Amino acid sequence: MTIITLLTDFGYQDEFVGVMKGVMLSRYPQAQLVDLTHAIEPQDIVQGAYLLRSAASYFPAGSIHLAVVDPGVGGTRTAVAVRQDGHSYVAPNNGILSLVVESGVDRVVSIENRDIFKHPVSATFHGRDIFAPAAAHLAAGNRMEELGPVMSHLDLIQVQPEIPVRCRTDKIEGCVVLIDSFGNLMTNISSRTLENVGVLHCNHQVGIRIGATFIPMISSTYSSVEKQTPLALIGSRNYLEISVNMGNAAKQLGACKGDRVVVTFAGK
Amino acid sequence: MTIITLLTDFGYQDEFVGVMKGVMLSRYPQAQLVDLTHAIEPQDIVQGAYLLRSAASYFPAGSIHLAVVDPGVGGTRTAVAVRQDGHSYVAPNNGILSLVVESGVDRVVSIENRDIFKHPVSATFHGRDIFAPAAAHLAAGNRMEELGPVMSHLDLIQVQPEIPVRCRTDKIEGCVVLIDSFGNLMTNISSRTLENVGVLHCNHQVGIRIGATFIPMISSTYSSVEKQTPLALIGSRNYLEISVNMGNAAKQLGACKGDRVVVTFAGK
Amino acid sequence: MTIITLLTDFGYQDEFVGVMKGVMLSRYPQAQLVDLTHAIEPQDIVQGAYLLRSAASYFPAGSIHLAVVDPGVGGTRTAVAVRQDGHSYVAPNNGILSLVVESGVDRVVSIENRDIFKHPVSATFHGRDIFAPAAAHLAAGNRMEELGPVMSHLDLIQVQPEIPVRCRTDKIEGCVVLIDSFGNLMTNISSRTLENVGVLHCNHQVGIRIGATFIPMISSTYSSVEKQTPLALIGSRNYLEISVNMGNAAKQLGACKGDRVVVTFAGK
Repeated sequence: MTIITLLTDFGYQDEFVGVMKGVMLSRYPQAQLVDLTHAIEPQDIVQGAYLLRSAASYFPAGSIHLAVVDPGVGGTRTAVAVRQDGHSYVAPNNGILSLVVESGVDRVVSIENRDIFKHPVSATFHGRDIFAPAAAHLAAGNRMEELGPVMSHLDLIQVQPEIPVRCRTDKIEGCVVLIDSFGNLMTNISSRTLENVGVLHCNHQVGIRIGATFIPMISSTYSSVEKQTPLALIGSRNYLEISVNMGNAAKQLGACKGDRVVVTFAGK
Repeated sequence: MTIITLLTDFGYQDEFVGVMKGVMLSRYPQAQLVDLTHAIEPQDIVQGAYLLRSAASYFPAGSIHLAVVDPGVGGTRTAVAVRQDGHSYVAPNNGILSLVVESGVDRVVSIENRDIFKHPVSATFHGRDIFAPAAAHLAAGNRMEELGPVMSHLDLIQVQPEIPVRCRTDKIEGCVVLIDSFGNLMTNISSRTLENVGVLHCNHQVGIRIGATFIPMISSTYSSVEKQTPLALIGSRNYLEISVNMGNAAKQLGACKGDRVVVTFAGK
Repeated sequence: MTIITLLTDFGYQDEFVGVMKGVMLSRYPQAQLVDLTHAIEPQDIVQGAYLLRSAASYFPAGSIHLAVVDPGVGGTRTAVAVRQDGHSYVAPNNGILSLVVESGVDRVVSIENRDIFKHPVSATFHGRDIFAPAAAHLAAGNRMEELGPVMSHLDLIQVQPEIPVRCRTDKIEGCVVLIDSFGNLMTNISSRTLENVGVLHCNHQVGIRIGATFIPMISSTYSSVEKQTPLALIGSRNYLEISVNMGNAAKQLGACKGDRVVVTFAGK
């Protein structure tokens, strides 16, 4: 039983996700289907890229990850399958795999083999007609090269958040890339980036500024501060997050996706 | 492992869907459960009927489809199981199967066999007490006739959208029957209806009017028009849809479910 | 294939639930995962406690129920596994099991065995690092005592709704503990409590007051009253519910969670 995970911006209101599952189970009945989320904001490739990277590594090697956030469906964007670190990914080539391939990639193919597509191929729902069949084909044990020709990883489209991470001698700039349902603000500043400049977890020598709010340290847990107080910590996805203990940071700080976040620290 | 799909208006906030799954797995542990959607608008049988029809055909023959949009629960409406084109359906007899049976039906039974119900049968949750047990009973390989007596398909309740499709010599009238989470407006005008009057995909001889908006052709893909521009196309469900490229048609056009849509064309 | 159900307040927007599933499938690939709901209101332990109790009993004996509503994550609250009536529960010890253990408990252990945790254990996502591994460990057939030392059920934290049930000679006081997606108001007054004071289903000798609304009887079904009329009935969860036939009681009555509900009856 091969696991296929699904991440889309299709929402929960329509039958689209169920239909993709029907297509996959028709072709590979043993598939073990697991939803990551279908609530990516419509057409928000950056958010999808961060969530996909965060989630995939918690699945066993051999898992297949189907990611369909596809504003360019029916246009000229291509379709790809990628193998990286024992996992396979099937997605439009529009940047949604940007973070998955950040630290290298083992293999990339361009999905072009029309024999595996579901026909007639619509112009508006490649999740059903191309991506789901491709994922099922891999899950059934077929080689990735059967999906189409090997291509260079250099041809994978990359996307960036509005403010990419910039490291200076005494500060790091980044931005909010996603807001979870508790209102926690996840930034694009990774724990590794912080460690590289000498900032460790639970550090009192740093300050974090977002809008008019200044947070004077990185905490280890929500309850390190008083209730309703803002704090910064390394979230469970290994990125810097800004939260409010027992509260909703997005609402309380009036913060939005894309908002600038600056970490200041004593230079090395 | 028989597939049972689930479509309801129960939402995602409560445990109702999980409970139906518990009842089915208690009786048929091998069931492969797939959610179509649980976000049908409360008691909107028409929306459920269209989504169910769109989704079911993508599942393998032998699948069982449990559809519970049931405003009349506890009243006098009956419960039915239907076999059509290799698929089985279990639902209240209130019109939710209207589109499934549009092109015929192989068998209909009235679900009356109390031996298979979960007791005590509540007055408010037949999804749990009657429909889930009936679906599990079929999934376990039992004959449909064990659920109750065969009945005439003429006794299946039919529902219609607010404006049923009317074909004239130079125009077709219909309405918006559902709005997806991207804001696309699906009408009840099927591609077959359009073909029957000589209107083909990608046709420039037609016009589509909804409210104050006039769209001068049927496109083949979203990107056929400029960004933020309205367009019409045959959607992935094989019905005429009105969309906005990279935008939200419902918001931009101020459109609602039930809104009149008129397709004008040069008469044959 | 052991069933593991999941109930959380993580919502559907993020990848958190998918990640917990990945962790469980990595450790016990045969797990049959069933979502109860992930839409518990953030940090609402009482709501989670009522839904969990309602749902769990519909699953077969041997099922494992993972319940993570965890406002105190990373603080001093402990983690527990409980066996009750053939079912196992894995949860933070914060009251979410209050109703599950109301009628007794067979075994309670404190989850402390770090060998089964996922490392490094974060300070913010014990669902992934502690609770999911513990549930998978039980599902794989291991003894509950391997999770940690047996503890007294007296050390299980209990929570109460804002207005606990109080029985007087001529009335019962309670409150709304949850509002479902149809707007039905479920109270904490159970059918057993009503029966204990001699109030039976479909009783005309009782009155129910909520805010300015008085309902003069307990009905057996929604359609017992006119459309858009408020009614009271014993809901499918075996608690007193206040509804509006073909309508939304929460909106129509302006009712909220915590609102006082009083049942008056002729004393025995």
